[in-house]
Amino acid sequence: MDELLESLIRGERRALSRAITLVESTRPDHRRRAVELLARLPDRQALRIGLSGTPGVGKSTFIEAFGGLLTGQGLKVAVLAVDPSSTRSGGSILGDKTRMETLSRDPNAFIRPTPSSAQLGGVARRTREAIRLCEAAGYDIVLIETVGVGQSETLVAEMSDLFVLLLAPAGGDELQGVKRGIMEMADLILVNKADGELLAAAHRTVADYAGALRLLRRRPQDPDGFPKAVPVSAATGEGLAAAWSEMRALVDWRRAEGHFAAARAAQDRHWFLAELRGGLLARLDQPELRAEIARLGTEVAAGRLAPGAAAAKVLAQLDVNPPPAAADAGPHE
Amino acid sequence: MDELLESLIRGERRALSRAITLVESTRPDHRRRAVELLARLPDRQALRIGLSGTPGVGKSTFIEAFGGLLTGQGLKVAVLAVDPSSTRSGGSILGDKTRMETLSRDPNAFIRPTPSSAQLGGVARRTREAIRLCEAAGYDIVLIETVGVGQSETLVAEMSDLFVLLLAPAGGDELQGVKRGIMEMADLILVNKADGELLAAAHRTVADYAGALRLLRRRPQDPDGFPKAVPVSAATGEGLAAAWSEMRALVDWRRAEGHFAAARAAQDRHWFLAELRGGLLARLDQPELRAEIARLGTEVAAGRLAPGAAAAKVLAQLDVNPPPAAADAGPHE
Repeated sequence: MDELLESLIRGERRALSRAITLVESTRPDHRRRAVELLARLPDRQALRIGLSGTPGVGKSTFIEAFGGLLTGQGLKVAVLAVDPSSTRSGGSILGDKTRMETLSRDPNAFIRPTPSSAQLGGVARRTREAIRLCEAAGYDIVLIETVGVGQSETLVAEMSDLFVLLLAPAGGDELQGVKRGIMEMADLILVNKADGELLAAAHRTVADYAGALRLLRRRPQDPDGFPKAVPVSAATGEGLAAAWSEMRALVDWRRAEGHFAAARAAQDRHWFLAELRGGLLARLDQPELRAEIARLGTEVAAGRLAPGAAAAKVLAQLDVNPPPAAADAGPHE
Repeated sequence: MDELLESLIRGERRALSRAITLVESTRPDHRRRAVELLARLPDRQALRIGLSGTPGVGKSTFIEAFGGLLTGQGLKVAVLAVDPSSTRSGGSILGDKTRMETLSRDPNAFIRPTPSSAQLGGVARRTREAIRLCEAAGYDIVLIETVGVGQSETLVAEMSDLFVLLLAPAGGDELQGVKRGIMEMADLILVNKADGELLAAAHRTVADYAGALRLLRRRPQDPDGFPKAVPVSAATGEGLAAAWSEMRALVDWRRAEGHFAAARAAQDRHWFLAELRGGLLARLDQPELRAEIARLGTEVAAGRLAPGAAAAKVLAQLDVNPPPAAADAGPHE
């Protein structure tokens, strides 16, 4: 454990990989070691950038090019993925590294493929903990990418300092395809493929989104002009430096105004409560209990046992500090 | 307890009211009595009809007229409401009874206003248990109404045998306003206000929805022609008998094919698991623990404690059957 921690802090990539594998494990002994490791991490901070983009918008090409821009400036970049859809397909995103050939060979970049199976809650925990490990390993930027599936964008936004939405040029009608809730989470909208034949369409799309963003309520954590939409081309590199400069301007302002630290504090508190609920519910996941729950479920489905009574049976077995005979909470009426 | 149960089974409305108040209570001693009462209920079944409709479609007028039609046929009708929005406004829907003046005076009808405060999870439990109490009290039909807010429609569909969507006549463009997920849950779409000036618009809307329903994938629990859209007028009573006859045809078919019982079994199993999770999480709601969680939350937000470590501290205190040192589940990779 001491050795893993030391190697991790020295920034050894193999140690970082091993530490992430440890936090991904569901084995109780691994989990205890993971919690211990996480508690002992030094307090280093990276800039956490959440990046969402549906397949086809050029996300891998963007990460490859943007990551290269950052490492070219001497920054260390880690790329993590939150992809609950891989749970369904049952396999890891094998393409993760091959999609980003140059970046994956860059000594200042670390790319971690999506684990092969995990529930969304598990993905959230793994990713939050992997971010902390990347920070401890001395990474300056942690890019957390997600495909826009279900709740994954909200999850990623909740663990990022900046939330960036990558879009492709589109006709005016397609603008509605971006859910309002996602628009409201975005700090920066990047319209990719602003090159060649799509250049004009990309600029029109930027104007459309800029207009849509102006209609949203101003958030306290935004300086004038944010959230913003800008054109980029991952293929030519055009606009990437400008986008990075917008990100830094936003982060600098938030740091100066105290919003950066406040957001992290709120995220950590939220994470703590999510861990607590998740940890408690995980107690239902013991093999013996699972069998008992399945058995009672059959009784309930057959109408031989009331659902509430069946739940009470399991809860009695769990023997969690039973609530006192009478709590202070009165009835609803 | 024996007396309450006996009066309830005799169909006394005061006993039913008192029993529902008991299941609504969050006091642990009330909860234990509620669980005991629910376990002792006779196995009577009502037809559970979920009814969703946003404010303005004439839901109260519909329930008043439709409920009257049913009681006129000698059926006993109970009306329950699932309205999570009342949590926010902080008050019960006072209008519940005054909105349905005739029905609320009908000796064969029982109308229960939404409780004054409850979380969505609590609302679900209360309503499921209230349904069982209404059944035990000899009601033939339980109408569970909801406004189309957030997850409330899904909740109601999950506790109903039939899910009915009440809509107002609309232009073709507005058809999109009904979320696809809601359409997929509906067994019957009733387009209300098919009278006077809106008659033609209502019939056009019925045709629009009928077309939209045909585009949905056929569900195994539907006979030919279902889900269906039909016009009704709550104001004139026109179409209500036909709508009731469609509902009975659907239910008869499902009973004959075994889908009715299968759906109830699945709902009960689902409810059992929801109760189990909810009951376990409720253990976090003890006063002392709440204070400790708040204190640790502050530590976490201040960066003095890792979120996972804070969660582990609380979990250790809870002392739920700790998971064995090594479970059978391996790491993810």
